[in-house]
Amino acid sequence: MRMYDIIEKKRDGHELIIDEIKFFIDGYCSGNIPDYQASALLMAIFIRGLNKRETADLTNIMADSGDKVDLSSISGVKVDKHSTGGVGDKTTLVVAPVAAACGVPVAKMSGKGLGHTGGTIDKLESIPGFRTSLGIDEFLANVREIGLSIASQTGNLAPADKKLYALRDVTATVNNISLIASSIMSKKIASGADSIVLDVKTGSGAFMKTFEDSVALAKTMIDIGESLGRRTSALITDMDLPLGNAVGNSMEVIEAIDTLKGKGPSDLRKLSVELAARMLQGAGKGSYDRCVEMAEKSIIDGSALKKLTELIERQNGNTNVIDDYSIFGESKHVYEYKANCDGYIASIRTDSLGIASMILGAGRENKDSIIDYSAGIMLEKKTYDKVSKGDVVARFYTNNKKSIDNAAQILDSSITISNDNLQMRPLILAYIDSSGVNKYIP
Amino acid sequence: MRMYDIIEKKRDGHELIIDEIKFFIDGYCSGNIPDYQASALLMAIFIRGLNKRETADLTNIMADSGDKVDLSSISGVKVDKHSTGGVGDKTTLVVAPVAAACGVPVAKMSGKGLGHTGGTIDKLESIPGFRTSLGIDEFLANVREIGLSIASQTGNLAPADKKLYALRDVTATVNNISLIASSIMSKKIASGADSIVLDVKTGSGAFMKTFEDSVALAKTMIDIGESLGRRTSALITDMDLPLGNAVGNSMEVIEAIDTLKGKGPSDLRKLSVELAARMLQGAGKGSYDRCVEMAEKSIIDGSALKKLTELIERQNGNTNVIDDYSIFGESKHVYEYKANCDGYIASIRTDSLGIASMILGAGRENKDSIIDYSAGIMLEKKTYDKVSKGDVVARFYTNNKKSIDNAAQILDSSITISNDNLQMRPLILAYIDSSGVNKYIP
Repeated sequence: MRMYDIIEKKRDGHELIIDEIKFFIDGYCSGNIPDYQASALLMAIFIRGLNKRETADLTNIMADSGDKVDLSSISGVKVDKHSTGGVGDKTTLVVAPVAAACGVPVAKMSGKGLGHTGGTIDKLESIPGFRTSLGIDEFLANVREIGLSIASQTGNLAPADKKLYALRDVTATVNNISLIASSIMSKKIASGADSIVLDVKTGSGAFMKTFEDSVALAKTMIDIGESLGRRTSALITDMDLPLGNAVGNSMEVIEAIDTLKGKGPSDLRKLSVELAARMLQGAGKGSYDRCVEMAEKSIIDGSALKKLTELIERQNGNTNVIDDYSIFGESKHVYEYKANCDGYIASIRTDSLGIASMILGAGRENKDSIIDYSAGIMLEKKTYDKVSKGDVVARFYTNNKKSIDNAAQILDSSITISNDNLQMRPLILAYIDSSGVNKYIP
Repeated sequence: MRMYDIIEKKRDGHELIIDEIKFFIDGYCSGNIPDYQASALLMAIFIRGLNKRETADLTNIMADSGDKVDLSSISGVKVDKHSTGGVGDKTTLVVAPVAAACGVPVAKMSGKGLGHTGGTIDKLESIPGFRTSLGIDEFLANVREIGLSIASQTGNLAPADKKLYALRDVTATVNNISLIASSIMSKKIASGADSIVLDVKTGSGAFMKTFEDSVALAKTMIDIGESLGRRTSALITDMDLPLGNAVGNSMEVIEAIDTLKGKGPSDLRKLSVELAARMLQGAGKGSYDRCVEMAEKSIIDGSALKKLTELIERQNGNTNVIDDYSIFGESKHVYEYKANCDGYIASIRTDSLGIASMILGAGRENKDSIIDYSAGIMLEKKTYDKVSKGDVVARFYTNNKKSIDNAAQILDSSITISNDNLQMRPLILAYIDSSGVNKYIP
């Protein structure tokens, strides 16, 4: 078999057999196939596409390229949840304890944030003492004993995807649905869950800018999951406005704790309950309505908050943060960003909001950036809200005073205030599983 | 400007502006743009295509990437001739002396052979003493003084094309008409001629296997030439059977000398006169019919042969070869390849014939192979000829006895003998210039 012939075959629009995909991935990982041949094939794949079979094979081969987490020592149906990345998305911090409190074991490997999107691991690390680098035995033991663990991804989970993604990133071959889907799903497959619930974001802050593209991505991921024997479903959710009000690590943890106390922002609570219910459903805990009820109950009766407390304790975090938010520490500088006219907020570019937050210290500009856990943006007004000139729209928190002007400039060009009150777009736009797409009625 | 954006633009099927093409070529030659980005763009170009303007710009930018031959010190219209590569194609050795004898200066840079096709430089170097590595001053002086010089291409003629071709060769991006055309024409443009006559081969031994593809390639090259101010025309000629009977360096020189003596194979003479006439026409020497007459006369009156003798003398070759072919030396082993049944030769795969000849020692398997100038194949029968079992179809000449079996096996599978006498396909299939395509009536 020769890489040249594989490139030529895909270039001419033909289907690759599994052995050809394996030859490519194995050869590229071992260094036998050079970058320039891999990028030529990636461009051919980008333009000619991969069919369902090829996409599932690619995913499975990438999942096989490194370590695979073996969850067989944990009893029950293990369910994973994945979000395609959003701004202010702290749902994992709510959803995972809710699902665990309802008896579904959650063994979650998560990533660090880069660029305008934050990462669950960074958020958890804002809790003093919290350890995210767990050995696989400790990780599994935690899940067996308290039903929940969240750890940072080991370096060797789907290394083929990591190497390929780095090449795609510099050759304009990222934004292809088959390649995005196989990249995400290869890590989920390697993570070992039996069932997967996907939260596919759509809108200005997301990878997929349109509803149609988001549905296509979700369907592709569901096809992959189902063909590899994982019960997979997806929600399409709005990322045209940030989830909750907080963007920044410790602020988001506080908002998540508030939500588990029953007093967080309604959009965060709504999406978290929905995702948790879909996870329970995926684990065979009953009908959708029954699962929603169970999820709600775990918040109301405090069992989900208790589960989060157990998680923090197990991973050496200071559990006093649950009741005393001052333990997180406070930023030296607070800046009030105000409305410059009267009207309604017509839009907030969430990707810009993420970048402004990153500049304030909450995110990583590159892999080696150091995060300021207390930094970020607290929105006092969101899209559709009425504002008067001089109203505080957002508060910036930072330890780097110089960054404030820059962040304010970014918000100036990413918030639009109009005279008209727009109709609110629903937060949850659709639910998709292997049987089809169901649009939610707002 | 960023290479990433250029890749993305072509990936999505948009037209690249001249500055973008220049950024790519200059950056790639200087090493600022890595192979993996260049190959991604090449694949996008392969699939999405280049329009006429982009193709001409790419050609011109590649021609500008190295030295350009300045022919302005030579008076008259300088005409170049280029063949897209065939097996047994020794036309340059006939055409160049004919054109020069008719008063059209020929300053020809030529390449060495690789794989199944031979190179004019290798053929000339089979003449004892003949020098092909000329300094540019000597090259130009020869053309000024005797109207003719043939030298090996300097390493720095269109180096961008050389570097790009090496990458295309390993990324399945060679066989695209715009890229082939710009590669060929970049060297022609850098070589400095005012007018270019192209011999585009079609058939089993050629780059382009079908008449339609050959016409498309010819038209693309004509568009490039005309848009860069070079009067350009093309013949589409048959490469389903080899030109003349000899395949191998000194054997081909002998056949060319025979042709200039008026006694060579008729197909070689016919094509040589046609190409020479088109060169004369391109130089403004009169009507097509008048130019054919001039070319024929130069063979009949011996002036073309005299011009070849002058060329050999100028470039330190032994001119006695003209009358005494034994000076070339003879191969130690001669093998008679015979027909294994009665019938008519229905086809000879010319590419296989070229490979068999290479194996006998006449060509290069890789850049560093050493050529055996006396080695090769002399066809005693060609396509359409009647043969009886046991008739000698070809004679192999070689100094490497071991190669004979291998060459014979290749011929076994590349010659078809049938009961039916097929209708002969004409040698010259079409003439094309900027005014359109004229099919030749056989």
